Amino acid sequence: MQKLVECVPNFSEGRRISVIKKIANSAKKISGVRVLDVEWDKSHNRSLVTIVGAPEPVLKAAYEMIKTATEFIDMRQHKGEHPRIGATDVVPFVPVSGVTLDECVLLSNKLAQKVAKELKIPVYLYEAAAKRSDRVNLADVRRGEYEGLSKEIGTNPDRKPDYGPSKMHPTAGAMVVGARKYLIAYNVNLDTKDVGIAKKIASKIREKSGGLSGVKALGFEVGGFAQVSMNLVDFEKTNFDQAYRTIEKEAKKLKVGIKSSEIYGMIPLEAIVRAIKTTFMAEKFNPDQLLEKRLYE
Amino acid sequence: MQKLVECVPNFSEGRRISVIKKIANSAKKISGVRVLDVEWDKSHNRSLVTIVGAPEPVLKAAYEMIKTATEFIDMRQHKGEHPRIGATDVVPFVPVSGVTLDECVLLSNKLAQKVAKELKIPVYLYEAAAKRSDRVNLADVRRGEYEGLSKEIGTNPDRKPDYGPSKMHPTAGAMVVGARKYLIAYNVNLDTKDVGIAKKIASKIREKSGGLSGVKALGFEVGGFAQVSMNLVDFEKTNFDQAYRTIEKEAKKLKVGIKSSEIYGMIPLEAIVRAIKTTFMAEKFNPDQLLEKRLYE
Repeated sequence: MQKLVECVPNFSEGRRISVIKKIANSAKKISGVRVLDVEWDKSHNRSLVTIVGAPEPVLKAAYEMIKTATEFIDMRQHKGEHPRIGATDVVPFVPVSGVTLDECVLLSNKLAQKVAKELKIPVYLYEAAAKRSDRVNLADVRRGEYEGLSKEIGTNPDRKPDYGPSKMHPTAGAMVVGARKYLIAYNVNLDTKDVGIAKKIASKIREKSGGLSGVKALGFEVGGFAQVSMNLVDFEKTNFDQAYRTIEKEAKKLKVGIKSSEIYGMIPLEAIVRAIKTTFMAEKFNPDQLLEKRLYE
Repeated sequence: MQKLVECVPNFSEGRRISVIKKIANSAKKISGVRVLDVEWDKSHNRSLVTIVGAPEPVLKAAYEMIKTATEFIDMRQHKGEHPRIGATDVVPFVPVSGVTLDECVLLSNKLAQKVAKELKIPVYLYEAAAKRSDRVNLADVRRGEYEGLSKEIGTNPDRKPDYGPSKMHPTAGAMVVGARKYLIAYNVNLDTKDVGIAKKIASKIREKSGGLSGVKALGFEVGGFAQVSMNLVDFEKTNFDQAYRTIEKEAKKLKVGIKSSEIYGMIPLEAIVRAIKTTFMAEKFNPDQLLEKRLYE
C-alpha cells in the first residue's frame, strides 16, 4: 500500500489572496505533493491548505509553506475572529494510508525542529505529538492567543515551547504542530422534524457520554429535518457504517426512520473498504481489488 | 470522470510462455494502457490478457495483440479443451467508468473493421455488439469450433462473418469481438453445511427463474459450508449489496444466517460507490470524495 500523509496547515491570512496563493504555490512546487484544497475566510482572517503525498515530500512542502508565511505575514498587524498564536498557526499531520499515527508524530517533531532551528520560531507540539498532557488540546496551547502568549512565553515555564527560543518570532509569533487521526464528517438525517430526537440520539452515541469510541455528535435541525451530525475522529474504532447502524437502532426505539445520510468532504479509501468488509462480512476484501486503484500503482 | 474501458482478449496459446509474453508486451508498449493481468491454462491451451485504459489506447493495444497472435499462432496445429475458432478467439470490451456500453459496441466495430481490412481475418460480433440475434451468445458463434466453421464459412450464409472475407485466415482462423457489461463475481457463504439451502436460495434469486435482474447464481459446497456463488452481469441493475440483502432475507426464512461474503477478482469503484449510496442512503456520495482518487487526476 502506498504511504500517504495529509497535512492541513492553517495560516493567519484570509484577506490578501496574493499571499495565500504564494503560500499554496510553495507546496505545489514540491514533486510528489498534491494540493487538494485551499480555503480562506475573511472575517476569521485565516486560510488553510490541504496537501497529500508521501511523508517526506509532505514534510518538505509544509516547511516551504511555513517559510513563505513567515516572510509575508506580520502578526503585529493581524486581526481576526479565530484564535491564533502565529503566522502559521497550526500544522496537523494526518495518516491516510500505509502510515501510522506514530509516523506522523515523528514528522511533527522533524518539522518542529527544522522550523525552530532555521526560522527561529517557537513551536509547541499538540494532540498525538504532545510531550505534556496540558498540550494535547489545541485550545490549551493557544490560551491567550498571540497577544497573551507574547507576554508569558519568556517568563512562565508552563509556556516554554517544545522546540525553539522562549520568545516570539518578531513577525511570525509562535506555532503549533502535531498529529491526529483522519476525521470523517458524517451526518444522518432522521425522518422527523423533531430535533429533540436527534439531540437525544446524539447524546446517546457520543463517546463523552459513554457511547461509541471516537464519536462526537450533535443534534441539529437542517432543512426542516432532524439531523445527527458527527465527527468520527478515529474511524478504525468507529466507522461511518457502524454509526449509521447504531443510529438506525436508536431511532427505531423512538419509532423514527432514517431519511438519508451524508459523508461530508473527503474520505480515505481505507474507511470505505472497512465499511464494505464489516457491512457485508467480506473480511477478505482488499483495496487492491479496486480496478481504478490498480491503474495508478 | 475519467473514461476507462477494460478489454480481455482470449488467445489460443496456453503452452508457449514466450508467445504469451510477446502478445502481452504488444499491449504494454501502448501509452495509456495498463496490463492488469495475464493468465494461461495448459490443458485449455489458452491465455487471456486483461488491459484497462482510455477507449482509443485500449483499441490500439487490442489490435497490436491480435497482430502478434496472428504472427505466432497457427490454428492448424492447435489442440485444447476449450472451444475456439481462431488464434485470437474472443475480444470483449467492457465499460468501467465514464463510458457507455454503446461506446464499447462502437469500439468493437472499429476493431473488427481494422482486423478484417488489415489482417484479412473474418470477424463476428457478439453480445451487445451482435448484429444478428443468433450471434448474441458466444457459444452460438463458436458452434463447430475452428474445424467446423472452416467447412461452413464459405457456403452457409448464416455463418457469413460481420466483417472480412468469407474464408478462414490460413493460420489465424476467425475471431469474435463484442461488448458486454462488467461482471462482478460475488459469493455469499451461509452458516450451514446444507448445500440444499444454497441451491434453493440460488434458484430463487437468479434472473432466469424470475429473481434479480442480471444475476446468475448456483449453490455449491465450499470448505464444508454452503455457498451461493453469483455472477452479477449488470451491477447497475443488481449490485452486490442488494444480492447480499436478498440472500440474507431468503436465508432468514430458512432459519440460516450468513457466515461471510466475498467479492472475487476486481471491481470498479463505481460498484463500490453505488453500494455505499444504497446501503447508507447516501445519495450524494461521489467517487471524487475519495482522497486517493483525487490524487491521480
